Amino acid sequence: MKNDKNSIINNQITFFQKEITISRKRGCYVITEEILKEIPEIKKIKIGMMNLFLKHTSASLIINESYDPNVLIDLNNYLDKNIPDDESWYFHNDEGADDASSHIKNAFFGHSLNIPITNGSLNIGTWQGVIFCEFRNMKSDRKIVVTIQGSV
Amino acid sequence: MKNDKNSIINNQITFFQKEITISRKRGCYVITEEILKEIPEIKKIKIGMMNLFLKHTSASLIINESYDPNVLIDLNNYLDKNIPDDESWYFHNDEGADDASSHIKNAFFGHSLNIPITNGSLNIGTWQGVIFCEFRNMKSDRKIVVTIQGSV
Amino acid sequence: MKNDKNSIINNQITFFQKEITISRKRGCYVITEEILKEIPEIKKIKIGMMNLFLKHTSASLIINESYDPNVLIDLNNYLDKNIPDDESWYFHNDEGADDASSHIKNAFFGHSLNIPITNGSLNIGTWQGVIFCEFRNMKSDRKIVVTIQGSV
Repeated sequence: MKNDKNSIINNQITFFQKEITISRKRGCYVITEEILKEIPEIKKIKIGMMNLFLKHTSASLIINESYDPNVLIDLNNYLDKNIPDDESWYFHNDEGADDASSHIKNAFFGHSLNIPITNGSLNIGTWQGVIFCEFRNMKSDRKIVVTIQGSV
Repeated sequence: MKNDKNSIINNQITFFQKEITISRKRGCYVITEEILKEIPEIKKIKIGMMNLFLKHTSASLIINESYDPNVLIDLNNYLDKNIPDDESWYFHNDEGADDASSHIKNAFFGHSLNIPITNGSLNIGTWQGVIFCEFRNMKSDRKIVVTIQGSV
Repeated sequence: MKNDKNSIINNQITFFQKEITISRKRGCYVITEEILKEIPEIKKIKIGMMNLFLKHTSASLIINESYDPNVLIDLNNYLDKNIPDDESWYFHNDEGADDASSHIKNAFFGHSLNIPITNGSLNIGTWQGVIFCEFRNMKSDRKIVVTIQGSV
C-alpha cells in the first residue's frame, strides 16, 4: 500500500464522539443538514468513517432519497400497511397500539449508519440523505451517538 | 479539532479481534451480557467502535429492546407470519422447509452490528440490547467475529 | 489489553479509500470476487474493517449465501411479491412503475456493509458472499465507496 492520496498510513488518526438529539412527530424526515451542523469536526477528516447510532428501539436511522418528499411518504405508508399498529396477536402493548409495531419497524430499518468521509465531507450519493423515522405517535427526544474516526 | 475529552488525536489506537460462539434454538434472544463477558478488553477503550459480524446466512444479529421479553416474541411471530417456512414457490429447500425462509429473514435483519464504545462501555440506550435470532429449527454453533477499534 | 496476535496497539494504522463501479440488470448477484479484485490493498491489513457504501437509493448491498444461486432467486422473488411495482397508492412514480418499490426495497436491505479483515482476507463465513441487488429495470452504473482501515 502506497502512501498516496487514497491511503494514509500512521499519520494522525483521530477518534471523535458526540451525542446529539433529534425530535420529530411520527413519520420519516431528511436530517442530513441538522446533523452536519452539529459536527464541524468532520471538515478536518481526510479519509474516515462516521457512525450514527440511535439509542432507541422505536425509531430508526436509514439512508434514502433526500430529494422528492414523496419517497418518504411512500416508505412510511408501506411500513404502516405492512407492520400495522394494534394487531390482535401482539403481546407487547404496554404503551399503546403503536408499541409493538414500532419495535418491529426498528428491527427491519435498524438504528445505525456507517458513512464514509472523504476530504472533510460525507461521501454519499447526490440523491442520498440521512433519514430519521419516528415510529411512535408521541414525539420525544431521541439521542444519537456520533463517532468519527479517520486521518486528519 | 481539539484534543479534549471528546476527541483523541494520534494517541494509542488499538485494533482487537476475537471469534466467539453463540448457540440457541429457533427464536430471538438478548445476548449482550454473554458477549461482554468474552471481551473484557473493551474496558480499556476510551472512544471507539465495536463490530459484531455473524458468519452465517440463516441467523441474525440486531439491536432491539432487552427489557420486555414480549417484544422478541412479537418480533419472531411477525417474521414467521410474513416470511413463512415452506412456501410452494421457494426453490432453495435442500435442508428443509425452514431453509429459504431463514436466508430471506437474514437478508432483512442482517448479520452485523456497529456499536459505539465510550469510556470502556457500550454506549447503547437504556432499553437496548444485542439480540441474536436463530432462524433454523436445528440449534447449531454460530460464530461471531468481534472487532474492537479505538483509543486506549 | 496485551499486544498479542489478536490485538495491535499503536502500530501502523492505515485508512484507505477507493470508488468502484458495479453494473447489473435487475436481480441479485454475488460480487465478492469482483470487489476483491479491485482492492489488492486488503492483503496488507492484519486486523481491520472494510466498509462498502453504495451511493444509490434504488439498489442494495447485503451479505447472503454465495453458493446456491436459488437462494438469490427466492430472495428476489420474495421482494417482488411483497414490495410490488406499481401499487396504486405510490406517489413517487416519476421514473416508472419500478421507482417507489426500488426505494422501499433499498430502505429494507440497506446500502452499506462492514466486514472484518483478518490477516489480509475478509473474515466471512464459508457460505457468505457480498450480494449486489439492482432494483430498477434499467441497468446503470452504481458506485461503491470502499473504505479500509486497520493495522498493517
